[in-house]
Amino acid sequence: MQQSFDFTAYQKQDLLDCYSLVKPHVHRTPVHTSRLIDRKVGASVYFKCENFQRMGAYKMRGATHAILKLPPKLRALGVVTHSSGNFAQALALASQTLGVKAYIVMPSDAPDVKKAAVENYGGIIIECEPNLEAREKTAARIVSKRGATFLHPSNDRNVILGQGTACMELLEDYPELEYIIVPVGGGGLIGGTALAAYYFGKNAKVIGAEPFEVDDAYRSFHSGRIETNLTTNTIADGLKTVLGDQTLPIILNFVDRIIRVKELEIIDAMKLIWERMKIVVEPSSAVALAALLREKNEYQNCSIGIILSGGNVDLSKLPF
Amino acid sequence: MQQSFDFTAYQKQDLLDCYSLVKPHVHRTPVHTSRLIDRKVGASVYFKCENFQRMGAYKMRGATHAILKLPPKLRALGVVTHSSGNFAQALALASQTLGVKAYIVMPSDAPDVKKAAVENYGGIIIECEPNLEAREKTAARIVSKRGATFLHPSNDRNVILGQGTACMELLEDYPELEYIIVPVGGGGLIGGTALAAYYFGKNAKVIGAEPFEVDDAYRSFHSGRIETNLTTNTIADGLKTVLGDQTLPIILNFVDRIIRVKELEIIDAMKLIWERMKIVVEPSSAVALAALLREKNEYQNCSIGIILSGGNVDLSKLPF
Repeated sequence: MQQSFDFTAYQKQDLLDCYSLVKPHVHRTPVHTSRLIDRKVGASVYFKCENFQRMGAYKMRGATHAILKLPPKLRALGVVTHSSGNFAQALALASQTLGVKAYIVMPSDAPDVKKAAVENYGGIIIECEPNLEAREKTAARIVSKRGATFLHPSNDRNVILGQGTACMELLEDYPELEYIIVPVGGGGLIGGTALAAYYFGKNAKVIGAEPFEVDDAYRSFHSGRIETNLTTNTIADGLKTVLGDQTLPIILNFVDRIIRVKELEIIDAMKLIWERMKIVVEPSSAVALAALLREKNEYQNCSIGIILSGGNVDLSKLPF
Repeated sequence: MQQSFDFTAYQKQDLLDCYSLVKPHVHRTPVHTSRLIDRKVGASVYFKCENFQRMGAYKMRGATHAILKLPPKLRALGVVTHSSGNFAQALALASQTLGVKAYIVMPSDAPDVKKAAVENYGGIIIECEPNLEAREKTAARIVSKRGATFLHPSNDRNVILGQGTACMELLEDYPELEYIIVPVGGGGLIGGTALAAYYFGKNAKVIGAEPFEVDDAYRSFHSGRIETNLTTNTIADGLKTVLGDQTLPIILNFVDRIIRVKELEIIDAMKLIWERMKIVVEPSSAVALAALLREKNEYQNCSIGIILSGGNVDLSKLPF
């Protein structure tokens, strides 16, 4: 079922060029370690702290790259996306940084705190009915009316390349990593990570981590098709989206395996990171450590990178 | 009222020697910044992240130094302290690291989570009645029975010097700091910080931060005597202790001022750090930022260091 992969679309030089473009506008995030977690896993684990990225998540990288790749004429007309999550904030902040207008389509029932965050970063919010059809229609209207460019949160070549820069930095710091584990939602992060690991790692294998409750990527990985989720009852709210025609082929070609985890495992891993590493990460980030803890017997004494994807949580709604 | 200060007891070389001793056993913690907090304050703020220190607090530095300064014969007999806070854990872990026995006297009603932490680090817990007299008597018994050396959490020359190494590192990274703000409990951290700023800063002024609810240091600073607290109703549980005859003279001679803050200001500052810096700090750490926010008009455009003292919190008992 494996789809053929177009290597010409994602070359080593593309990632290098992407990094040169993005670098001045994003943080080079630190890598943290924990002796206790190393002991618990039985391996050396290197956490790439994208929760310390600007606006609190790796999405800043892809959003910045996607805007920078627009020709000046299109940039002047602005960008648009529909999202109520980190990509909305990332696109707003990246646009503000680069002097571009960002139209963010959000469902009318989106939490005030998310709207406020987008507005704080200078994003222009356009409200719509809380369903996917309304979101897509509203975004399409802005595209045709304003000439703004629609940017997808994950299924976009430039977004994927941008997300890959986190792994490029991680491998620059720790070139000998044998495995790199990242959470899978729409596949932008794992896509970029897989390409970066392929071109810059020494046989580093990339592993996806996903909640059982939204295991579309796991099923897609095995069926070779884009699978969907009938329900999305997971605390990892960043991972509810599904793969796309850009991300699926990369995953099928470059990813080693996808590990699924239970909700309680996510919460336990999140608590472990907060308590022992003293950092704030969102549930989606904890999914990667949860996956490693679940399958730790397979990775004894290995050298493992984990990308902590973000740290945007509502402190009044913690699961512990 | 100012007491005379014995400079011969705390010389520049003492701090340098202390740092050489302690350095192999503690983390050099990173310094984080936040554009949003800088804008909110109207100054450049550099946060020394001792929440990332081993066992989660700067106390690891002083505890390590105090043990290292013991002659080998005394080291072999172990150390003892009475504490249910960070110093208990720090002494346990420092002792474990250095192959020394640590007897930790804890009140019988101390939370299980604190007892477990001390035990995890190899500390030997001796329970006593939950009052100061019982704690002191129990500790004295261990001193006479085992020959163990009693180490005070703050009012101890070697502990004070050890705590000063955090500020030495901070000034090595940012030599031009004009102010350094730290929370004040027993005065070990502010004592060491004040000495380090005096010897290694370029006129860096040291400011203490303290809750109104336990403002003994503020009152001591103005009366020149050791003042006590009649009540200790503060969320900043690390700051309930009072100054001692070692720490008071340093504060009187070297500290610029002490700023008091309200409980709600502490909680707001703590939330700000968690939400925007994505790091876990304990309430006592947030007191320093709360003080700066309260008095920000005095420090516009200044270059300010803040020592985030620790990150040991019970995640099930957060104030937000």
